[in-house]
Amino acid sequence: MPTPTSAARRPVGGRPRDPQIDAAILTAVRELLAEEGYGRLSFETVARRAGVTRPTIYRRWSSKPQLVHEAVFPARSDSAVLIPDTGDFAADVRRMITDTVASYARPEARAALPGLLTDLSQDPRLRAEVIDGLENRVREQFRALVRAACERGAVRADADADVLFDAVLGAVFTRAVAHYDIDIPAGFVDTLTALVVDGVAARAGDR
Amino acid sequence: MPTPTSAARRPVGGRPRDPQIDAAILTAVRELLAEEGYGRLSFETVARRAGVTRPTIYRRWSSKPQLVHEAVFPARSDSAVLIPDTGDFAADVRRMITDTVASYARPEARAALPGLLTDLSQDPRLRAEVIDGLENRVREQFRALVRAACERGAVRADADADVLFDAVLGAVFTRAVAHYDIDIPAGFVDTLTALVVDGVAARAGDR
Repeated sequence: MPTPTSAARRPVGGRPRDPQIDAAILTAVRELLAEEGYGRLSFETVARRAGVTRPTIYRRWSSKPQLVHEAVFPARSDSAVLIPDTGDFAADVRRMITDTVASYARPEARAALPGLLTDLSQDPRLRAEVIDGLENRVREQFRALVRAACERGAVRADADADVLFDAVLGAVFTRAVAHYDIDIPAGFVDTLTALVVDGVAARAGDR
Repeated sequence: MPTPTSAARRPVGGRPRDPQIDAAILTAVRELLAEEGYGRLSFETVARRAGVTRPTIYRRWSSKPQLVHEAVFPARSDSAVLIPDTGDFAADVRRMITDTVASYARPEARAALPGLLTDLSQDPRLRAEVIDGLENRVREQFRALVRAACERGAVRADADADVLFDAVLGAVFTRAVAHYDIDIPAGFVDTLTALVVDGVAARAGDR
């Protein structure tokens, strides 16, 4: 039955979306990514696995990168707090790194990321829509975390949150994706946390 | 004319390699990557651009990832010093970051890397052959740089060279490749250098 919520999600001219069908499609995508990789995944193979028709998928996602990105990095509400600020900068950075490792280390993420980046690199508008939306939200929340730590005197005034963010995201990407079949060493999160926290720690005499 | 040098490079049962043909093929690969991207590049299109036959290419490189990797990251002699140790840790780290940015920011590298990672992720043996050889040499030289700085007391004894290396490589990858059409900001090298150097600086009282 259409409700105000489902009506709001209804595509123009389309029928209301059934969340169970959405879930079945996204599960099929994750399974196929882990089993066969990004390159072999198609709307055809997803439809067969999920037990739906191809048009059912096209009504929801208009391209393979959009479908794969939502399956691998499920959309959350725009107001969701992705990087909580507990007032303990080191603990918050560690949690962000732990979450990033957990997210990138999943088989479906490792399988999807290089192919996804390849497809998106050829279509800047699609990339902006698919990746930048989520990444920019996380980046903006991280900037706020660094600003707050700076105001408390835990972080140097000239700390560049964007470079820190690139270093964290990039280090995890390098370990989990470029070397995707190598286990992430146990000390990796500790060491990366210490690097970031010590790298921007306020020096004696800074304040 | 075969010389002792060219004879040494001669494939088993093949004719001596002509360095001018090698160079023409590698130039064609770089041009086609920048113009059309990794996905559309084939031995056929490279052969046409370089004015050689496909078997001429296959005699030298047995797969597209091997060919593209050598075109984008030209092999140097095994004994080449890729990360010189001048005794000034901050300056050496800055130079390594500058070189990495310069290398990844080239249009052919940006165009090649996601597709190359995709192809290699499906073939661990080929990846080990293609990427790990060069990366492990650079990584080993960076470890030696960190060890030496540690012995001079410039770097903490527990500094983890591998995590530093991942952070540097990953931060540059994130900027140059994942966001490949965005210019790398002027302060990026400075800030990343400071992050690494301050992140592992010996603390007062460490020694």
